[in-house]
Amino acid sequence: MRNILIEIEYDGTRFQGWQSQQNKFSNQKASPKTIQEIIEKVLGIILNDKIRLICSGRTDAGVHAKSQIANFKTTSKIPLEKLKIAFNSLLPEDIVIRKMKEVPARFHAQYAAKTKTYRYTILNQPVNNVFMRNYAKYIPKPLHIDLMSEEAKVLSGRHDFKSFQATDKKERNSIRTIKKIKIRKRAGFIFIDIEANGFLYNMARNIVGTLIEIGRGKFPKGSMKKILQAKDRKKAGPTAPAKGLCLLRVKYK
Amino acid sequence: MRNILIEIEYDGTRFQGWQSQQNKFSNQKASPKTIQEIIEKVLGIILNDKIRLICSGRTDAGVHAKSQIANFKTTSKIPLEKLKIAFNSLLPEDIVIRKMKEVPARFHAQYAAKTKTYRYTILNQPVNNVFMRNYAKYIPKPLHIDLMSEEAKVLSGRHDFKSFQATDKKERNSIRTIKKIKIRKRAGFIFIDIEANGFLYNMARNIVGTLIEIGRGKFPKGSMKKILQAKDRKKAGPTAPAKGLCLLRVKYK
Repeated sequence: MRNILIEIEYDGTRFQGWQSQQNKFSNQKASPKTIQEIIEKVLGIILNDKIRLICSGRTDAGVHAKSQIANFKTTSKIPLEKLKIAFNSLLPEDIVIRKMKEVPARFHAQYAAKTKTYRYTILNQPVNNVFMRNYAKYIPKPLHIDLMSEEAKVLSGRHDFKSFQATDKKERNSIRTIKKIKIRKRAGFIFIDIEANGFLYNMARNIVGTLIEIGRGKFPKGSMKKILQAKDRKKAGPTAPAKGLCLLRVKYK
Repeated sequence: MRNILIEIEYDGTRFQGWQSQQNKFSNQKASPKTIQEIIEKVLGIILNDKIRLICSGRTDAGVHAKSQIANFKTTSKIPLEKLKIAFNSLLPEDIVIRKMKEVPARFHAQYAAKTKTYRYTILNQPVNNVFMRNYAKYIPKPLHIDLMSEEAKVLSGRHDFKSFQATDKKERNSIRTIKKIKIRKRAGFIFIDIEANGFLYNMARNIVGTLIEIGRGKFPKGSMKKILQAKDRKKAGPTAPAKGLCLLRVKYK
């Protein structure tokens, strides 16, 4: 049995996410609508076997990935360079396998993940940009980036992020550690990069939605600390749209 | 009568181009498929009048524009800032009006254009990029950029570009002036920028197709000069795909 790691890039626009939450209850459609289903199907065809992918963590419908990591086991001895070419030629053009490599049998793409980094992209200029329409949230009025950066600082470290957790999908433990949160402006764009040891459901998008309210001047200075301490989703800002979010990288031990 | 200039950005992916060549012969479809038709329709709704757009020059099916210029005449006195907002809110999300301004009555977007600059984007790295799939031609093997740049130099200036003209759409006069042609690599991309006083049908894409053959080593050093002098389309390389081409800007007197 070989254990194969794959690095995947995808444009999440037309997918129901990495794995559909409703899958087990809904009727399977003729054509797969999740990234996992498509990759498993194509791998299954090439390797003539039923392949089960384990990924670092699901991404929601409409969320993109520059570098998602997954692994699968196979008895096939096909050289990986050959497999990758066949694989990419059969995948739709919004999914690309960037890398494949053999890893130790114990490697598990989810459990071995140390941190994940998500980037949220905001287009913040008076004029919209058609080429970024699926990859950024457009906000024409200037945001107060300095205030956003200042307020974001309180999120760094180990905290209970209950205030930023989707109310309909609560986990028992809402404590996570944000290793780094960085906001910067480049040309007309604002990039919000968040590296954490894990993300609650909608956590990244709820943090961004809150930062946007701060940047708009709707939440005053000092509000992020209060929101974090409240442990109450209702205190935070709205969920920023999925299309602005992209999984940038997954770090392993 | 006011004469209004508009600056338009569009993602050409799903359109038959600025204006369909077949329009007069084919049955009009229920939903417009050219950029011109869509803009004229939306303007017509807002201004409650039949609007005829004049543009700097057509772009082909699949070709994009960062800055296309057009003008139209109207008796409406609606403030342009207001018109722009209404306009953008009714346009599909792959067309954006970047700017509107009143210009002298004699301004004609096509005749007054001094030069146009097109950019062709090639993704030239071992790994594909899903986010650029509609905006770049993907060539995994490294191209010889130095040779491409060197060979491109002979195209600068006033020449008969017959060798780069589509065989099925010849113009009486195939002499044009290339003011500037620049090739540069940035990260995994190669950008080929061509500024000219005019472009023959498919000229930019045929020049790029030829430069790619040179970069691949299929056409030797010195071949661009021979191809230009031959005035024979058959000597040049193939037509590079439309999706990599983008109208960057139009210069006026």
